Amino acid sequence: MAMLFNIFSLKNLLVLSLALNLSLVLRVLYEKDFEVNNGRSVDTQKDALTTTDRVLSEARATQRARPSMPSSSSTVDSDGGDTIINLDHGDPTMYERFWQQAGDKSTIVIPGWQSMSYFSDAGSLCWFLEPEFAKEIIRLHKTVGNAVTEDRYIVVGTGSTQLYQAVLYALSPQDAVEPLSVVSAAPYYSSYPLITDCLKSGLYKWAGDARSFNKEGPFIELVTSPNNPDGYVRQSVVNKSGGILVHDLAYYWPQYTPIASAANHDIMLFTVSKSTGHAGMRIGWALVKDEEVAKKMVKFVELNTIGVSKDSQLRAAKVLQVVIHSCQYPTSLGSLFDFSAHLMEERWKLLRAAVRQSGLFTLPEFSPGSCSFLNRSFAPQPAFAWLKCQEPMEDCEGFLRSNNIITRSGKHFGVSPQYVRISMLDRDENFYIFVERLSTIHQRQSVQVDETYGGIE
Amino acid sequence: MAMLFNIFSLKNLLVLSLALNLSLVLRVLYEKDFEVNNGRSVDTQKDALTTTDRVLSEARATQRARPSMPSSSSTVDSDGGDTIINLDHGDPTMYERFWQQAGDKSTIVIPGWQSMSYFSDAGSLCWFLEPEFAKEIIRLHKTVGNAVTEDRYIVVGTGSTQLYQAVLYALSPQDAVEPLSVVSAAPYYSSYPLITDCLKSGLYKWAGDARSFNKEGPFIELVTSPNNPDGYVRQSVVNKSGGILVHDLAYYWPQYTPIASAANHDIMLFTVSKSTGHAGMRIGWALVKDEEVAKKMVKFVELNTIGVSKDSQLRAAKVLQVVIHSCQYPTSLGSLFDFSAHLMEERWKLLRAAVRQSGLFTLPEFSPGSCSFLNRSFAPQPAFAWLKCQEPMEDCEGFLRSNNIITRSGKHFGVSPQYVRISMLDRDENFYIFVERLSTIHQRQSVQVDETYGGIE
Repeated sequence: MAMLFNIFSLKNLLVLSLALNLSLVLRVLYEKDFEVNNGRSVDTQKDALTTTDRVLSEARATQRARPSMPSSSSTVDSDGGDTIINLDHGDPTMYERFWQQAGDKSTIVIPGWQSMSYFSDAGSLCWFLEPEFAKEIIRLHKTVGNAVTEDRYIVVGTGSTQLYQAVLYALSPQDAVEPLSVVSAAPYYSSYPLITDCLKSGLYKWAGDARSFNKEGPFIELVTSPNNPDGYVRQSVVNKSGGILVHDLAYYWPQYTPIASAANHDIMLFTVSKSTGHAGMRIGWALVKDEEVAKKMVKFVELNTIGVSKDSQLRAAKVLQVVIHSCQYPTSLGSLFDFSAHLMEERWKLLRAAVRQSGLFTLPEFSPGSCSFLNRSFAPQPAFAWLKCQEPMEDCEGFLRSNNIITRSGKHFGVSPQYVRISMLDRDENFYIFVERLSTIHQRQSVQVDETYGGIE
Repeated sequence: MAMLFNIFSLKNLLVLSLALNLSLVLRVLYEKDFEVNNGRSVDTQKDALTTTDRVLSEARATQRARPSMPSSSSTVDSDGGDTIINLDHGDPTMYERFWQQAGDKSTIVIPGWQSMSYFSDAGSLCWFLEPEFAKEIIRLHKTVGNAVTEDRYIVVGTGSTQLYQAVLYALSPQDAVEPLSVVSAAPYYSSYPLITDCLKSGLYKWAGDARSFNKEGPFIELVTSPNNPDGYVRQSVVNKSGGILVHDLAYYWPQYTPIASAANHDIMLFTVSKSTGHAGMRIGWALVKDEEVAKKMVKFVELNTIGVSKDSQLRAAKVLQVVIHSCQYPTSLGSLFDFSAHLMEERWKLLRAAVRQSGLFTLPEFSPGSCSFLNRSFAPQPAFAWLKCQEPMEDCEGFLRSNNIITRSGKHFGVSPQYVRISMLDRDENFYIFVERLSTIHQRQSVQVDETYGGIE
């Protein structure tokens, strides 16, 4: 590790420096009342801006084009302008820029009289699935090559969160003596245990880390690949029979990880939130091999919400159409995947540079792999950074919070609070302030540990 | 009853006759391959059409304006053109005509880059509620005068179905020894027991008819008013302490029942499905007095679906705007409530006439009440007909099914299968075929009972 640091540090520091400049200029441009109080003025940095001019110009255009948006994930402190950067949720606002630049092609128009019925296709197994959306899902998977759609039923859900519950309902026997165990290898998605146990269901029950699971009888194993929070490609880890596998493939898209082959599992979950960035739509889909499982999932969605918003399905269909078109006929902007893969690559470089600069953290290391869609080899660049605070810090979330960076503690993912999960999908301005602050946290930390933040040791 | 029949029968039969004509002409006009094989030709009936010309002309316009819609609730038999009329669900497609005629005012345009975030208003208690939608909800209730919105929190849900579950979650203590009992007076909405018990929750449990409930300890009583399925205005029936009331006011709108005063309860549930007819949006809202209850409901929606479709909320806001405008500045079409109240009145007249003609059924009788919104007195004209088959028929659902009318049996509502629930909100053409068939069912029945349908006795 020390050698790696020596080799890459100069290059990384240069990249980091550029990010700092960008961040500063963004502050001056977009937060007029923001006081540059860390001693570096815009003027003294302007010569270094050459390579970031393009990004900056895009960011400017973005800001101009953007109407007033609700403050989603960050607010400015009232006590002096220090911005709180909230990277707790994986809010994919990074994608707004692509869609702004894509223009009117993805605009949806819905007349008042349209889609009033509960039914989308009364005769079909999933009677609330808009046929147009189903068609685009299949086209998208064929275009990207990340999942097999042949001989699968498509079940649409109000986000993949609802589909996760639909799967649990569908797989649990109604007459079992005790609840079915649900496991996933730690670190696992923090919402799995909360959702599974929130109603104290008699059908299923969260049973924790799949690696230490040794109970007799049937069980469900959730395989999230690439994994949320750590980004690694995963396979089943429970080495015993009786398990039913559920593959959460929300992040199996070429901007996050090389597409090695088309996933071909019995139950696969996807969502627009992490593929196109439209989290506000609340649209997910499941590809399900077994008809009975699909039918029961449909039954759950019927009981839970009597189907799924038609408006969002129609909009999702339109958005997928544009994504597919951007792959087939790329413009200067590139496809959605070109755009976001590039951005993720850039962000991961900046983050790794900041982490090295600070000397207080570590990040997962990934091996490159060949991507059949992007036709090149690259290392995973996940939607979340799974950051580990170095010893002696034990509460990484608390430490970052004291630096006005809101993250999610490792304890919610079934592991040590030395880890935090950090969203890599926020808007440019927030991300750049974040990496800037992370890179300088070392200097601040020495003051803070002594004066205000005793809890980190 | 016999006297009533004598007084009204002539008038009712005239109305019924007009409906039959309308139904026939509709068939000829819109189902070109439909064979008029019951001996009554269009020509011989045309003189009787004068009073239905307006409705017919509107229906024609509607059909012309309507693009191809998926077959939602009815399909044509392959064995000779006998239409299966499915009135099992309360699919509110009756409202399509209003929205077609209302034109472009209710059209929503959503650019691809809009509403991508999970958050609508990060600082607000219900962080996934679109402020624009919240504003229109308050304006609508103020306009109609059907609910108090002051000192209430608004929680948006994926239909009121999701909000019902959110309420159960919010009201159930997490550490209780046994599940909280949930009751409602029979006949109660058939989905309540199914939704309540589908996951075998340890937090709450369906405990049946509120009238026979006598268990000690706390409980939830659902008060649906006007009631689904029977349309009566309701109040709490459990005469003991410890109950928490939840008011499902999905049908407390002036097209269904006179608005006596603004409802002023602790927890009130509403939905666009039954107010504006937009069931496909999956949007409902709760007005909640207690902050802690509202917060827990928000938590449930977060766990269940991470918020509610932004697209549908934006569209709902637009639709409510148009509804409010239609009340404030009514055109020749009248307000949404004028339109739908008139349609419901017409439909209930036709239904009562058909029921009297057949002599096989009874319907609930309602007393007129004064409506503060429509400024007139009228009897409830519910969204469902709660039909009772006369003795000796025991299985009303089965009997109607044998006549190609699909309804929902009383047994799902906690009462006898002599009852069925029938949607009154389907499209004109289906409704008219339905009343026509119901009115002539007596003649058919005598043949069927002997020949094919032994089960009804």
